[in-house]
Amino acid sequence: MKTYQLNKISKSELEKIFSRPSVSNADVMGIVRPIVNDVKNNGLKAAIKYAVKLDQFSGESVFVSKKEINSTEKQLDKKIKTALTTAAGNIEKFHAKQLPKSYEVQTTKGIKCRREFRAIENVGLYIPGGTAVLPSTMLMLGIPAKIAGCKRTVAITPAQNKIHPAVLFAAKICGVDEVLKIGGAHGIALLAYGDLKFNKVDKIFGPGNKYITAAKTLVSIDPEGCPIDMPAGPSELLIIADDNARAEFIAADILSQAEHGIDSQIILITTTSKLALQVELEIIRQLEHLDRKDFALGALGNSSKIIVENINEAIKLSNTYAPEHLILNIAGAEKYVDKIQNAGSVFLGEYSAESIGDYASGTNHSLPTYGYTRSFSGVTVESFMKSVSFQKVTREGLNRIAETVITLAETEKLDAHANAVKIRIKK
Amino acid sequence: MKTYQLNKISKSELEKIFSRPSVSNADVMGIVRPIVNDVKNNGLKAAIKYAVKLDQFSGESVFVSKKEINSTEKQLDKKIKTALTTAAGNIEKFHAKQLPKSYEVQTTKGIKCRREFRAIENVGLYIPGGTAVLPSTMLMLGIPAKIAGCKRTVAITPAQNKIHPAVLFAAKICGVDEVLKIGGAHGIALLAYGDLKFNKVDKIFGPGNKYITAAKTLVSIDPEGCPIDMPAGPSELLIIADDNARAEFIAADILSQAEHGIDSQIILITTTSKLALQVELEIIRQLEHLDRKDFALGALGNSSKIIVENINEAIKLSNTYAPEHLILNIAGAEKYVDKIQNAGSVFLGEYSAESIGDYASGTNHSLPTYGYTRSFSGVTVESFMKSVSFQKVTREGLNRIAETVITLAETEKLDAHANAVKIRIKK
Repeated sequence: MKTYQLNKISKSELEKIFSRPSVSNADVMGIVRPIVNDVKNNGLKAAIKYAVKLDQFSGESVFVSKKEINSTEKQLDKKIKTALTTAAGNIEKFHAKQLPKSYEVQTTKGIKCRREFRAIENVGLYIPGGTAVLPSTMLMLGIPAKIAGCKRTVAITPAQNKIHPAVLFAAKICGVDEVLKIGGAHGIALLAYGDLKFNKVDKIFGPGNKYITAAKTLVSIDPEGCPIDMPAGPSELLIIADDNARAEFIAADILSQAEHGIDSQIILITTTSKLALQVELEIIRQLEHLDRKDFALGALGNSSKIIVENINEAIKLSNTYAPEHLILNIAGAEKYVDKIQNAGSVFLGEYSAESIGDYASGTNHSLPTYGYTRSFSGVTVESFMKSVSFQKVTREGLNRIAETVITLAETEKLDAHANAVKIRIKK
Repeated sequence: MKTYQLNKISKSELEKIFSRPSVSNADVMGIVRPIVNDVKNNGLKAAIKYAVKLDQFSGESVFVSKKEINSTEKQLDKKIKTALTTAAGNIEKFHAKQLPKSYEVQTTKGIKCRREFRAIENVGLYIPGGTAVLPSTMLMLGIPAKIAGCKRTVAITPAQNKIHPAVLFAAKICGVDEVLKIGGAHGIALLAYGDLKFNKVDKIFGPGNKYITAAKTLVSIDPEGCPIDMPAGPSELLIIADDNARAEFIAADILSQAEHGIDSQIILITTTSKLALQVELEIIRQLEHLDRKDFALGALGNSSKIIVENINEAIKLSNTYAPEHLILNIAGAEKYVDKIQNAGSVFLGEYSAESIGDYASGTNHSLPTYGYTRSFSGVTVESFMKSVSFQKVTREGLNRIAETVITLAETEKLDAHANAVKIRIKK
């Protein structure tokens, strides 16, 4: 991690420090497009073909039976079950408050307008697999879907034969209706287009590698495809630390982000150059013991430390960067909450490690990256819902609003719009 | 409009009746992509070049001055001003209730999680122009942006020289910060990528023709581009009518939808074949007097009438079609509200003409089309906001959650995630 002093760098140097690892995916699109089209045209059969070829799938069926879901519970370490149940409890507590409420307003005498919320009926959850086992992602997507009340929740994850029991147990906690042993671009396409034997979903959620991202992009811009939760990019963390912060904690947080992958990015902004140096030494010390050391080293190459004059300057920089995760390892962190404009999830104070939020504090870990926190929220209960507006106009309401509607329709030269009101007031 | 009896058609015939006019846009993409790239690379200068070439822009500057916005008020018919102000009042009343509230939950003793909402800082509103004058679209996008509290709201609309005073007056009502005389794919690209003289926005809203839609799609999937409100397609209306409905009203509603364009679609579902016939005759009668007769005729070619046994059957069909607009011209329409799963905006009872919602009831007219009401809401105040989650973990909270986080991190083989907690509990 290189160290910079804010007052010694130019605007364009700062832009370069803040630039994310490239996610240009023209090549990836070239690989993914034919797979997506094949599954679009040939359904489940094509999807299974790719599962066998690319994921070494060798099971009897890609559909996981209820029996398989239930029986795995016995195979799972009790400690893991307790951890998943505890995490799920916190996630449920936090997300339950997100259930939106309908309301009605009389905007004009005789005109009542109403907003109602409906769960999206069919939702698809992508749970990455391969070398990773991610029961936490199942909880983060499945619990909001359950709270929203989605009629049918389908989770898919690549598997050679069996899905890890922790993932299936997490699916059970969330009341997921269907689990499929299928992943990759072919899995995304199956969710998006369906098949005679598998109904397509109405929205696809979940993280994934560049192939998943490309497949999600393709299906989301195809009118016959399927909307998605949010655009994706590599994970990232920005830490703001003051003189009181412990280098040990900061180094540990940096490495917990860095181990995600070589395209992760970490920005440390601190008021003290002494701390920046201590963190560097701590990183070297802690790095030695990590299994995923190579990933972490790669990510550290994309990462930087910036020395600033004060915390307000740091917050301003953070809002410009718009990080997925933001740690405020500073005294009186709560005082700065109102100043945080662009961030996905924020960790206040020295004990709020990012990994607590990744698993169990209760907040969602499915968050916008790549600067998208300027425009997007993370996954919430509302992500699994949509609203419908209603209006009821009485005869009195019609009389009161008629001239307004006729005038505006005529201003916009839409005769028939005006006529729909004129014809009614005549009666 | 062809008439079908539900019990006499097959599932695939129904699918064909419900299929929307094609929005395939490979050709359009070929035209739009170089324009978008040119503006991405060459900024405002390139955008103005296309404004001159494609929109016959001949003004001095594309930036509308505050003076111009204020002075147009004098040129505008008082009746139109009153209508816009009245409509704006209703829209504001309905949307004000959408402002989301932050909350905090203690998920575990010592762990507090918080959700806060922030307005997206820079938003771009696309107001179509050309032959159309759409002050109503300015209200429907600008009022939610104002309620959300966006720091900078930019509206763009194509113009040869002057923008229609009604559009500028609507912008003034909404407190729009900047208005630009620029439209088309070049306008969308300018919003998405910005220029040294024009800061890019964080999200683009608004309807438009196929070129606008293509440009919005392109910028939304470019990580250097800009997110958009929702996917777009031609406008559509589904009407459910019973024996009591007046053919005159239904024909007028059908035509108000049909005049939008030749790719509009209307589906009338009724329990009575007599009404279906009367509506046909009424359409012929009313059509004669319409300026936009040719558009309407084109749209009627995409449209159908379906005879069903009862209203529940009709509602079920409507949920399958998932219309942008839904009129329930039936007795006791309110009783069916809970059964409406997929629709953008719903009009209850015979006096609730769709055009009232288009302009002035208070609900938003910027709605998902093309079946996207299965997954999307229309534009709301929340569309201009996003949420940030916060967590504060105390020493006690850390102790309570540590084992859960460590167990889950180890299950997922993410050492450094576990370590960020281990290192803290040691202290």
